Amino acid sequence: MKLQALRDVLGTRLVTDGTSLVTHATDLSRAVFTGTPLGIVFAESTADVSAALAWANEHEVPVSVRGAGTGLTGGAVAYDRGLIISLERMTRIVEIDAANRLAIVEAGVINADLTTACTEHGLFFPPDPASSRISTIGGNVATNAGGLRCVAHGVTSDWIAGLTVVLADGRIMRTGARTRKNVVGYDLTSLFVGSEGTLGIVTEAIVRLKPLPEGAPVTFWADFDTVSAAGDAVVSIVNSTAAPEVLELMDAFSVEIIESFNPTGIRVPQGALLVGQTAGAEALAAATQIGELARAAGAVGAGIAETDALIEARRLSNPALNARGLKISCDVGVPVSSLAEMFRGVEALAAAHGIRVSSVAHAGDGNLHCTVESPDTPAGIAAADALIDDITRLALKLDGTITGEHGIGSVKQHEVAWQLDEVTRDVQFAVKHALDPKNILTPGRGI
Amino acid sequence: MKLQALRDVLGTRLVTDGTSLVTHATDLSRAVFTGTPLGIVFAESTADVSAALAWANEHEVPVSVRGAGTGLTGGAVAYDRGLIISLERMTRIVEIDAANRLAIVEAGVINADLTTACTEHGLFFPPDPASSRISTIGGNVATNAGGLRCVAHGVTSDWIAGLTVVLADGRIMRTGARTRKNVVGYDLTSLFVGSEGTLGIVTEAIVRLKPLPEGAPVTFWADFDTVSAAGDAVVSIVNSTAAPEVLELMDAFSVEIIESFNPTGIRVPQGALLVGQTAGAEALAAATQIGELARAAGAVGAGIAETDALIEARRLSNPALNARGLKISCDVGVPVSSLAEMFRGVEALAAAHGIRVSSVAHAGDGNLHCTVESPDTPAGIAAADALIDDITRLALKLDGTITGEHGIGSVKQHEVAWQLDEVTRDVQFAVKHALDPKNILTPGRGI
Repeated sequence: MKLQALRDVLGTRLVTDGTSLVTHATDLSRAVFTGTPLGIVFAESTADVSAALAWANEHEVPVSVRGAGTGLTGGAVAYDRGLIISLERMTRIVEIDAANRLAIVEAGVINADLTTACTEHGLFFPPDPASSRISTIGGNVATNAGGLRCVAHGVTSDWIAGLTVVLADGRIMRTGARTRKNVVGYDLTSLFVGSEGTLGIVTEAIVRLKPLPEGAPVTFWADFDTVSAAGDAVVSIVNSTAAPEVLELMDAFSVEIIESFNPTGIRVPQGALLVGQTAGAEALAAATQIGELARAAGAVGAGIAETDALIEARRLSNPALNARGLKISCDVGVPVSSLAEMFRGVEALAAAHGIRVSSVAHAGDGNLHCTVESPDTPAGIAAADALIDDITRLALKLDGTITGEHGIGSVKQHEVAWQLDEVTRDVQFAVKHALDPKNILTPGRGI
Repeated sequence: MKLQALRDVLGTRLVTDGTSLVTHATDLSRAVFTGTPLGIVFAESTADVSAALAWANEHEVPVSVRGAGTGLTGGAVAYDRGLIISLERMTRIVEIDAANRLAIVEAGVINADLTTACTEHGLFFPPDPASSRISTIGGNVATNAGGLRCVAHGVTSDWIAGLTVVLADGRIMRTGARTRKNVVGYDLTSLFVGSEGTLGIVTEAIVRLKPLPEGAPVTFWADFDTVSAAGDAVVSIVNSTAAPEVLELMDAFSVEIIESFNPTGIRVPQGALLVGQTAGAEALAAATQIGELARAAGAVGAGIAETDALIEARRLSNPALNARGLKISCDVGVPVSSLAEMFRGVEALAAAHGIRVSSVAHAGDGNLHCTVESPDTPAGIAAADALIDDITRLALKLDGTITGEHGIGSVKQHEVAWQLDEVTRDVQFAVKHALDPKNILTPGRGI
C-alpha cells in the first residue's frame, strides 16, 4: 500500500487509527466532514512536513493542514482519502532575540504562549485574535488573523518578518530576513501569510515583537441611543491622536446577551455600546479624550471602567451568544465611515428575515461579526445561511469585504466571486498553479 | 511598421523623437543605457497603459516603466528596441477620503504633493523616502520605498490598501479593498508592492493615511566617541517606549562632510552622531528620555536642537557627499543589534581597499547607506564597485540584506544569489512566469 513508503520515513508520527482521524477531521466552523482520511502526520519538524508533502505530491493525495483546529471557515477540514498534516507538536520557541525585537517560533506555538515567553523581555506579539489562548501562530499566519488590538497595531502580516515554508513538492524555502527592511525580490512572506495552506505549509516564522507599553491599560466605555451616533464617535476617535489599543462596538442585543451571561454592571444601551482600551504613559489622558469625542458625537454616557472586565466580557462573547442559540457568524468588513449604516442595514435584514442577529465590531477596523440565530435543523441552518449571505452582500455594497480576519476556507468559497473580479481570480489561480501544479494543497478552498 | 498600431490608439501620447528618448532612457543610478528605444508612451490613463502593454505583449517588446526617474538601481533604464512607459502625466489625486483615512492617487503623483494635499485634512502619508519631493507614489510602490520615518511607521507596503494594476497582456486588475482588514484570497497588493515593474504596471493606488501628530516635532542629538556606544544607544532606544519618528546615525566622516557643506553648528564627533525626532503631545518627554538612554549607553553629549536643521542636513546628505567625490552608494540592512559591528566592518574594509567611505544609517531600521569615493574613470568605478560588493557581503554575514529600500533593479542583479537560495529564486521566477509568460515587463531585473 502506498502509505507504507511514508510510514517508513515517519514511523509512529504517521497515525491512522479511527479516533485520531475523527478528532482531527474538522475545525470550529460549521463545515461538515464526510469520508475517510488516509492518515495524520503529527509533524515534529520541517523535515517531517517535507517528507509528507513529497509523498503526497508524488501520489497526488490532497492535503489538509491544521494547528489547533480553531479555524472558523472550514479551511482545515480533512479530505476524503486525503492526508492530514498536524503541526500541533511543533511548539518550540526557537529563539527570542530581544535586542532586535524578533522571535523565531514553530508553527504550533500557541499565540498566548508566545506572549507569555516575551513578557519577561518587556516585549509582546501584537496580533491577538479572540482565540489567542487556543490558536497557533501557524493558524494566525495562515489566515492573517486579526483581533482586538489591530486598530493600534495592524494584522498578523504586519508582524511577520520571514517564514520557513514547505512547498507542495516537499522543497523547503525561507522567505524574508531578520532586518526591519528588506526589498530583495517579491514579498513572498506576505504572499504566504493569509494563503490558508494553499501555497505551501508554514512550519516556522520569524515574528516581530514590540516593547510592552508602560503601566496598565485603561478601559473606557460610552453608550449611545443610536448606532448612527456611535458610528460618528468611532470615525472621530480613529481620526484623532488618541490611538486606542482596542475599540469595540456592540449593538444593544449583544450587550444584553453578553451582560446576562457574564455580568459586569454595564447598562444595556438604547442603541450601541462602545468599549475599548488605551495604553502607555498617556493612557488615562487618551481615554479621557476619547470620552470627550464620544460625548461630542452624542454619547448618552461615557466613562472610565475600574477593571478590564468589559474587555474580557467582549473577548468571551462567543460562548454567551452560542448559549442563546446564536451560532452562525460572519466576518465582514466595511470602511469605518459606513459602520453605522452597516449596523442599521443588518438590523433591517434581520427584521426582514425574521431572525435575530447580534452585531459586534472591531470598530476601529470596520470589521463586523454578525452572529445569527440558528436552530440545529437543516431548515434553520439554511435560513441562517441565507441571512448571512444577505449581510455579506450588504457589506460589499458598502465597499466592504466578505472576510476581514477569518479567511475563506470552504465555508465562504461561494462568496469569493461576489468580491473579486474575473481578472483578479485568474491571477490568484495562476499563482496557485505556479506553486502547486498538482493542486494537492488544501484544494478548492481559500481563493 | 508595427508601431503604427500603437500610434493609432495613443496618437500624440506615443512619442518617438530622439530628445525625449534620451531624457527618458536612464534613472539616477550609475546604470548606463546603450541602444535605441522604439518610443515612449506618456500614459494619461490606465486605459493608455493597457493599450501599450497589450501591444507590447503581442509583439514581445520589452517594456521599461518610469515615474520621475529618481530610482537608484537602474530599474527604469530603457531597453534597446524596447518601449518606455512613462506615468509622469498621471498626477491626479482622485479622492481623499478623510473619514476612512484613505486617498486614491494615480501613480505619477509626487510623494510630497500627496502630503501637501492631505495636510488640510489633518492627515499624512507616512512613507517619506529622502526623494519625497521628486519621486512618485508609483515609484515608491515599485520599490517598496522606505525613508527616515520608517522606524515609527513602517515602509510603503504598510500604507497601501489596494492597487490598480495593468497586467502584461493589458488586462486591468484591482487588488485590495477600502477596508482596514481584508483576507480574501492572496495578498496580491503586497506581491506587487516592491515588484519593480516586473509583474505588472501599477497605475493607481489606494493609500492609507494617518492623523498628523499634535504640535511640532522635537529634534534631538547625541554624539559618541565610539560607534559601539552609539550602537548600544540605538538598541536601547528602539527597545524603549520612546518611539522616535526619526533615528539616524552618521559616522564622523559623514558628519564632517555634511557639516562643511551645510553648517548647522553641530560638533564633529569622535565616533558617531545620532540625530532624530520625536512627535506628538509627548515629543519633548520622549526626546529627553532618548537623551538619557544615549548618555547611559556612553554618549559624550546629548541635547535638544532648537530647529530641525540637523534633520534637513541629513536629508540633503547626498549632494554634500557627491561634492566630495563620494558617489557610488549601497543600501544594505542588518539587524539593529549588528549596526555598530557593521559600521566598524565598513571602516576596516575602507582601510583595506584604500578608499574613503561615508556611512549613514536609518539606525532604527538597521538600514545603512555607505557611499564610496569614486573617481569618474573606469578603474575608479570598478574599484568602488569592488568595495561595495565587500560591504554587501559583510551585511549578509551579519544576517542582513543586500537592499533595504532601493530595490535590485539592474545594478544589484549580480548580488541576488548571494542572499536568496535556489528554492526561493525558483519560486520568484515561477511567480514571474505565471504573470508575465512572455517576459516583457522589465525583463532581467528586480528578482
